[in-house]
This record gives sequence, C-alpha cells and structure tokens, in this order.
Amino acid sequence: MFIKKYFEQFSTDEVRETKGRTITETDIVIHAGQSGDFFPHHMDEEWCKTQPFKKRIAHGTLIFTVAIGLTAELVNEVSMTYGYDRLRFLAPVFIGDTLHVEVSIKEMKDHKKPGFGLVTELVQAFNQSGQLVMVCDHILLVHKKEA
Amino acid sequence: MFIKKYFEQFSTDEVRETKGRTITETDIVIHAGQSGDFFPHHMDEEWCKTQPFKKRIAHGTLIFTVAIGLTAELVNEVSMTYGYDRLRFLAPVFIGDTLHVEVSIKEMKDHKKPGFGLVTELVQAFNQSGQLVMVCDHILLVHKKEA
Amino acid sequence: MFIKKYFEQFSTDEVRETKGRTITETDIVIHAGQSGDFFPHHMDEEWCKTQPFKKRIAHGTLIFTVAIGLTAELVNEVSMTYGYDRLRFLAPVFIGDTLHVEVSIKEMKDHKKPGFGLVTELVQAFNQSGQLVMVCDHILLVHKKEA
Amino acid sequence: MFIKKYFEQFSTDEVRETKGRTITETDIVIHAGQSGDFFPHHMDEEWCKTQPFKKRIAHGTLIFTVAIGLTAELVNEVSMTYGYDRLRFLAPVFIGDTLHVEVSIKEMKDHKKPGFGLVTELVQAFNQSGQLVMVCDHILLVHKKEA
Amino acid sequence: MFIKKYFEQFSTDEVRETKGRTITETDIVIHAGQSGDFFPHHMDEEWCKTQPFKKRIAHGTLIFTVAIGLTAELVNEVSMTYGYDRLRFLAPVFIGDTLHVEVSIKEMKDHKKPGFGLVTELVQAFNQSGQLVMVCDHILLVHKKEA
Amino acid sequence: MFIKKYFEQFSTDEVRETKGRTITETDIVIHAGQSGDFFPHHMDEEWCKTQPFKKRIAHGTLIFTVAIGLTAELVNEVSMTYGYDRLRFLAPVFIGDTLHVEVSIKEMKDHKKPGFGLVTELVQAFNQSGQLVMVCDHILLVHKKEA
Repeated sequence: MFIKKYFEQFSTDEVRETKGRTITETDIVIHAGQSGDFFPHHMDEEWCKTQPFKKRIAHGTLIFTVAIGLTAELVNEVSMTYGYDRLRFLAPVFIGDTLHVEVSIKEMKDHKKPGFGLVTELVQAFNQSGQLVMVCDHILLVHKKEA
Repeated sequence: MFIKKYFEQFSTDEVRETKGRTITETDIVIHAGQSGDFFPHHMDEEWCKTQPFKKRIAHGTLIFTVAIGLTAELVNEVSMTYGYDRLRFLAPVFIGDTLHVEVSIKEMKDHKKPGFGLVTELVQAFNQSGQLVMVCDHILLVHKKEA
Repeated sequence: MFIKKYFEQFSTDEVRETKGRTITETDIVIHAGQSGDFFPHHMDEEWCKTQPFKKRIAHGTLIFTVAIGLTAELVNEVSMTYGYDRLRFLAPVFIGDTLHVEVSIKEMKDHKKPGFGLVTELVQAFNQSGQLVMVCDHILLVHKKEA
Repeated sequence: MFIKKYFEQFSTDEVRETKGRTITETDIVIHAGQSGDFFPHHMDEEWCKTQPFKKRIAHGTLIFTVAIGLTAELVNEVSMTYGYDRLRFLAPVFIGDTLHVEVSIKEMKDHKKPGFGLVTELVQAFNQSGQLVMVCDHILLVHKKEA
Repeated sequence: MFIKKYFEQFSTDEVRETKGRTITETDIVIHAGQSGDFFPHHMDEEWCKTQPFKKRIAHGTLIFTVAIGLTAELVNEVSMTYGYDRLRFLAPVFIGDTLHVEVSIKEMKDHKKPGFGLVTELVQAFNQSGQLVMVCDHILLVHKKEA
Repeated sequence: MFIKKYFEQFSTDEVRETKGRTITETDIVIHAGQSGDFFPHHMDEEWCKTQPFKKRIAHGTLIFTVAIGLTAELVNEVSMTYGYDRLRFLAPVFIGDTLHVEVSIKEMKDHKKPGFGLVTELVQAFNQSGQLVMVCDHILLVHKKEA
C-alpha cells in the first residue's frame, strides 16, 4: 500500500514491530548463491563443528537483507533511503532461529537540501529468545510537507 | 582458500580490486523473493516509467550483498566482521549494469580486547562507467600475531 | 500487519487495488522449477514461434500464484481461505507484462458452522493495457464477531 | 513427449496416477519468494506454535502449483486449459508430507464453439497417509477429431 | 511414469528426441548460485565484450545438467546411471539459444556382474540452428530380464 | 582472481584440495528445478524408503556441478575446458553429506594445435567419511608460453 508520510508527520515517540520470520537452511543456500559467498561458516557443516559456534551461521548480509525486508511494509512515496550507519551483528543467527524487528525513531533533523529532512530509524532485530542479534541506523531522506 | 593474515600484516597501502558482475533482472527478482521487499521501485516496470529514474532499480540490500560478496575471496581464519559504517548508495543500479569493487585499508587501530585490532576497509563499488554507486566502511576484528 | 476483521465488518461496497508487478522471464523459469512443468509453451522460444501466440506465455498456476500473492497484504487473524471457484485465464500473459489486481466483495452469506460466514471476493487481474487476464472467486471463511 | 489426444479419445473410465513429491521447507521458502506471500502461517515457526495446526503449512497456491505440475506429463497438442472450478484445500500440508495426484474424467460435453468439447478432470491430491488434501475440477478445451 | 525396460529390450536402432528448452539469463544466474562458479565468462557482460565470444556463455556444467535433464522423461525401474564418457562442449551456448537432445543407442554389452548389461547412449545436444553443442556417452547399468 | 598459468607451469606433482560444502535438501530441490529431473530418487521420500538406499539421493548432475564448482577458484586466462572423461558416481550422496574435492595432475601432453597442450586433472570428490563418491578426468586446453 502506498502512503505519503511527510517529515513533519514522524515523531520520536513512534515504535513499530514487524512480523516474524524463521531463518531456514534454504535462506542461507539461496543467499550464498546470490552473494557468491560460499565461506565454510555458512556452507560446511563439518568445518563448523570445529569452530566455537559449532553450527552453520547466517551471512551478515542475509541477516541485514531479511531485517530490512521485514520493515518494508508500506511504500512511503515521499521518503527514500539515504544510507545506513553503525550496522553491527551482536549474536550469531543459526538455522531455525526466528527473527522479528523493532523500529523506533532515533533522530530527526533538517537536511541541507531545502524542503527535506533526515529521519534516523533505529532498527533492532531480535531472535526468538528476545536476544538482540543485529542493530543499525536506517537514515531516510523525507520530503517536508511545507516545502 | 584459507589464509591466516594477522593484524600486523595489514597495511594502509593495500588496495585490491575484485572481479566484475553484471546485475541482472534475475538478481532483482531473487532478491525480492529473499528479502520480501516487492516495492514497485524493483518490481513494477510500468510504475517506474512514471518516476524520475524511469527504470527498475536494484534494492540497496542487493547492491550491498553483491558488493560484499565480491570481496569474499579468501577465508582469513584470524579475522571476522565487526560491522559496517557509513553505508551509502550514491547512484541507482539498473538491470544490465556491471559492478566491481575496490577495497583499500582506511584505518587500523587497537581493540579494547587484548590481542585484537580493528581494521577498517573502505569498500567502493563502481559501475561499468566508473561511477561510484555504493560506499561503506567494513570493520574487521583481527587477531594480532603477537597476542 | 495483523488485523481482526470480522464477518460483520465486510461490505459489498468494498473495493481494493493492489500494487503492480511485472512478470519476468525469471518468474517463468522459477515457476517451471517449482511446478515441474517444463512444457514448451513456457520454456521453448523456438516452438512458441510456431504457435498462434508466438511468444512464451506464463503458466496458469504462475498467474494465479502472483495474483493471489498480490492480495496478501494484511494478515486477518479471523479469516481463512475456504477455496476458489470459477478460475479462468482470459488472455495470455507474456514476459514483460505488468499485472495488478482488483478485489471486490461479491457475496456474503452464513456458513452452516455457527459463528462463521462465507465472504466471496471477486479477484480480477489486469495487465498494463487494462485487459482482464485472470478472474476467480476467492471464498473466505470468516469469524462472526457476535459468535 | 508430444501427443494428439482428441475429444473423442477421452473416456469417463480413465484414471491416472502421478509420481509422488515430498513438500520441503525449500518449496515453501521459494513459493513465498515467488508469490510475495510471507504470511506467518508459512514463514514463522514460533507464531505457528501458538496456532491450532502447530507447524508451518504450505501455501494453498503452492499445493495447487505442485499438484497441477505433477499432472503435466504429456504435451497434448490439441488440448488447452479452460479453467478450474471448486478448488478446495481439505487438510493442511506440512513440511515433509509427500503428495501424489489422481486424475479421473468427471464430465465430457460439447462446447459452444463448433469442433471443440469440454473435458472436466477431477484432480485429487493425497498425502502419504492417503488423506485427501486438495481437490479441484480442471476443465480442458479439446479439439474434436471430426471437426 | 514408471516403466520396466530390460537390457534385452534395448536396440541399437532406437533414436529419441527430447523437447526443446531455451537457455535463459536466469538459468545462468541460478547455475552460478548452485555451483559457486561466478567466473566472468558467465557473469560479467563487460569482460565478455573483450573476449573472442563477445557475450556471456553458459557454464559447461549447466549445459550438461539441462541436456541430461531433458532426457529424463520416463523412470526405468531396472536401469541406473553407471557413468558418462567423452563429454565435450563443441560450441558455446549463449543466452537465448534453444537446445534439444537426441539420444541413440551406441553400444550394448554384458557386464561382469551376472544378470546385468551395459547400454551406452550417445547424447547429442543441438542448438536452434542445428549445430551440435555438446556430446557425451551416457552409460547405463541395466537388469537383464532373464537374470 | 585472475592468473596466467601456462602449460609449462603445470606439473604432475601438483595436488590441491578445495573448501568443503554440505549438500542440502535445498540443493536437490533447486537442482530438480534447474534440470527438470523430478525423479522419485531425489524428490519422493516415501518411494525412497522402499529402495535399497532408503533415502533421497543427490542427482549425478548435481554432484558433478558442485564438485567442479568447488574447483573453480582462480580464473586462469590461458586455459579452457576441453572436456571430461570417465565420470563415475561411486557412492550415493545423501542430504547432509559434506563434499570436498582433491585435484591432481594426471597427464600432460601436446595438442595437435601448435602452441597448445592438454592437461588432464584427476578430480576426486570425497564425503565427510573420506569415501570417494565421484571421480572424473577434467581435460584442459592450455596455452604454451613459448608459443
């Protein structure tokens, strides 16, 4: 669904929570195929048994892709991605873990380009135990209504 | 191939360039399927004709996935990803564009955990015209040899 | 997003329109791979040139899958699919066609199971020229609020 | 293989049984990616534990796609799909269930277009316990030999 | 469909021809993802322009996979693959080429294991111009009826 | 990474070992979708229970694709595949098996085309128990330096 949500309509009080999604072996295999990253951390069960984490883990780029994808519910026609800051992977994600994402507004400020503001969303991905596995700042460039 | 490249063996003089890869319609469709992001910017050719960029564009998370994947050539057993900073998408990537990545060492510093250092790689993805389309800092946590 | 929309809250006045989606060669190849249907109508460009429609066409099950998928925007926790009736493919869908779907409420009636009603949605998929390519009745079994 | 089986060559005595196919987690993940339907019924193992069916279930459109795909063995050059009626999902299909399909001829009648007849196949999909999980009428438009 | 075709029922007079299949960009991208082979011959349109063949070409393992897959129409319950000999790629396969396969019986001989024979099929894949692009011997280990 | 390794630089003393890779259910399902081979040996868990090997097995073309893909690490600009000989599948590969490949130089000889030589690599794929599951000769056509 398409919406128009202008800079002035964002507020640092907002929090939203996404649907959940289980990370499957299939997701990892398809991600290896898309990224070209066939590192043994993701693809070699035997090698993983010799490592501290013992099991295959999801690629960082997969966790990021799924987490940001979960937040993409409404098409805001007056907003676009400016970039991402401070992307960190805080705990490994294993096959069978279920992630959901919480998005809150961390900061709002004017942009140098007149008529635009920057909205920084704090994106936090949690596993089924409530453990924080990934965090980043998603910076949006948003039209002002009174432009 | 597996290597062991310790913190002391990195140098801010290093630059490496990856193979190239053409971004196809297939990559975008598979990425929509993996991320769950079916926004019209990526999936609706008719809607895109009404937008400033006129054509379907690659997801930001796809560009990031392919760019980081291109850099994943050697398995360094004494290094792991700490995180990414200042990820920015500087120009749209269209179907048929060919990307390659240049990696240089931007910064090296000690980590609070004894025996480890942080190496910051500058990751720059260029299209076939030499235009910079994505940039980020990739921060690696690397073992010191003399730990 | 999760909602609870009970039988009493549906109305035969409702109409909704989905986002659009371009049917790509990739969709057809992946659908062949999922269905196991590699008939030349979908997979053999040379054979298609000898047929009345001249070009590869999308599988009926692909058109149905995409059309129903486009309507799956909100998770209604008090509704489930009962079945589909009168599914017809009225015009071929070619690679590059862009589909969108219109959903209207065609009929509402009690179900024999107390506390439930049947809502029949008319699902119509159109291509970029406004031509109706697929139609079906989607029958939902919906909880009544006053059950 | 290509065959020519005309309207007069069908008979209501015919029954055929297809190969079997196990529905995997991979099938569900790929189907979510093709349909864009990431509803928690299919993708969120934790949420499913709170529901009556306890486990992730296959999409209706996936069951239909696989069942119809299993029947697509011979290319009949004088027949085409007219549509489907009374498609019903009678029992949930879980990861690891194995489906096979039985096809019988339910009805044969003239079509208003001279030289064509309508053949209605009854399509029944069963799981490994012999339980009927899906049923529909597949209506074929078939050339008459004596046209 | 399942058949039982014993060693004695094969004959060096037999020839069969498969359906055709167009090799798409999607096939190449999926094959790179399955094989892990992202060589520029298949994935980098710009690099290919500098090479004698000018365009991206299909992986040898993809051509082999599709050609052998095209021959897999009937499940012969009394036959299994013993191996392949003299696999050669005689002309490049480009995106958009349409392949079909001809299978003839080249040789039949006893196997050292009593009750079994070896049947060697000559597998030839041609493109839409009738050019031979791949050839191999497919050796089958087949039960004898009079075992 | 690109290298130039001429005929004279190969030696029959060379041996190299690849990374490992676990064969997953996903690999088999994607391979069925790519090859069009949905034989019950790979896709029907119930049927497999009635067979000597009891479980679903990987397609021969999948084992070959993965094994050859694992060897594709460096792009040698002065070498190309001439063909494959004596491809044999010596033990079944099941879901969850982890393969790695050893490559040694078996033979080197002149080619009739002046300036070229033929290098035959012996490719051996082993599972996690060290059992040889696949073997073949990979014949390379390599430029001579002193051409």
